[in-house]
Amino acid sequence: MALIRSVFQEELDGVSQSLVDLAQMVSDSIHKATQSLISADLHLAEEVISYDGKIDNYQHELDSRIIDIIARQQPVASDLRALVTALRMSADLERMGDLAHHISKVARVRHPNSAVPNELHDTVRQMGIVAENIARKVATVIESRNTLLALEVEKDDDEMDKLHREVISVLTSSSWNKGVDSAIDLTLLGRYYERYADHAVSVARRVYFLVTGEYAPA
Amino acid sequence: MALIRSVFQEELDGVSQSLVDLAQMVSDSIHKATQSLISADLHLAEEVISYDGKIDNYQHELDSRIIDIIARQQPVASDLRALVTALRMSADLERMGDLAHHISKVARVRHPNSAVPNELHDTVRQMGIVAENIARKVATVIESRNTLLALEVEKDDDEMDKLHREVISVLTSSSWNKGVDSAIDLTLLGRYYERYADHAVSVARRVYFLVTGEYAPA
Repeated sequence: MALIRSVFQEELDGVSQSLVDLAQMVSDSIHKATQSLISADLHLAEEVISYDGKIDNYQHELDSRIIDIIARQQPVASDLRALVTALRMSADLERMGDLAHHISKVARVRHPNSAVPNELHDTVRQMGIVAENIARKVATVIESRNTLLALEVEKDDDEMDKLHREVISVLTSSSWNKGVDSAIDLTLLGRYYERYADHAVSVARRVYFLVTGEYAPA
Repeated sequence: MALIRSVFQEELDGVSQSLVDLAQMVSDSIHKATQSLISADLHLAEEVISYDGKIDNYQHELDSRIIDIIARQQPVASDLRALVTALRMSADLERMGDLAHHISKVARVRHPNSAVPNELHDTVRQMGIVAENIARKVATVIESRNTLLALEVEKDDDEMDKLHREVISVLTSSSWNKGVDSAIDLTLLGRYYERYADHAVSVARRVYFLVTGEYAPA
């Protein structure tokens, strides 16, 4: 019985743990980005913006490590596929960090005002909660390889799409009186949250495929 | 003198050629997407939308081939790095196809009207030309590994950013009278073109790094 795990297995586990770390980092990031946006908190916005550099460095270090493992261990079949998939997941997660960063930049440019008018505070706050939770769930999916949980991420994304449609419907209603500048901000913000959730779905689908060998039902 | 090239070298060249093909496909796609948008051409919009499925399939086939080469040839150092980079470039190019597809979906939803009002036709047409040319240039960069040309792509991206700012400044000018719906469309369209160019820059930078071992000056 091989109770002693191989160095290679340790390395694969290390990669998986780093992806979990990245998912948690981008979950924290979107939480703070949303807060900075709703509360017009410049200090918090700056924090998210500079934290994005840390996320990028973490991802670069992880990617180098993955390529180094492929070069040294020369894995084939499922191990190689897992490592290539890890590279793709790290790219998705890094992009989620970028999107949180974009959101905080909108908060910063509108400071001391909030980029989000009062009537949309609840909806945008809710988008932030969905985003934060989806990233946390993705961390658990990577760690547990739980395919049922991976499928749940698609439902969270549906919730995000619903909230996004709510934002657009407020912007295009006849009662909208905050002007075009604000509509532009909110169109972009809606898009950033939506893309954030899309990348989370992408990570969950990659885990699903690795575990089952099949694509997740759309 | 090794005048007979190895099977491995042939395979690497094949990957490079497929990336060139992909870049040309997404250049055609954005050209048609822009036409469909300006001329409110539903038939052309549908063509771009269905063509995106072909681009996706082409990319999937390419990615499988790259992973298969890594598994069989077990390359190290620069060859492995080139193959991993090819995977990343194919993801960038596939995303450029998605963005052309998004643009055509805006054209489709506004048909029989044009999503772009007359006063922005020239600017959006110009964005389309910059996008089409940047993808063509990227094809040449991949093929020739010409680092000077790779740096030129950054300048084309600056031109795209300038056009994007022009769109936003028209939307936010006091003379804008096309309403919020149209402003939302144009905000998203501007974003799609801008992201398209960003991904082209990303591909060019990857080639630059592969050739020189250094990051392109920002």
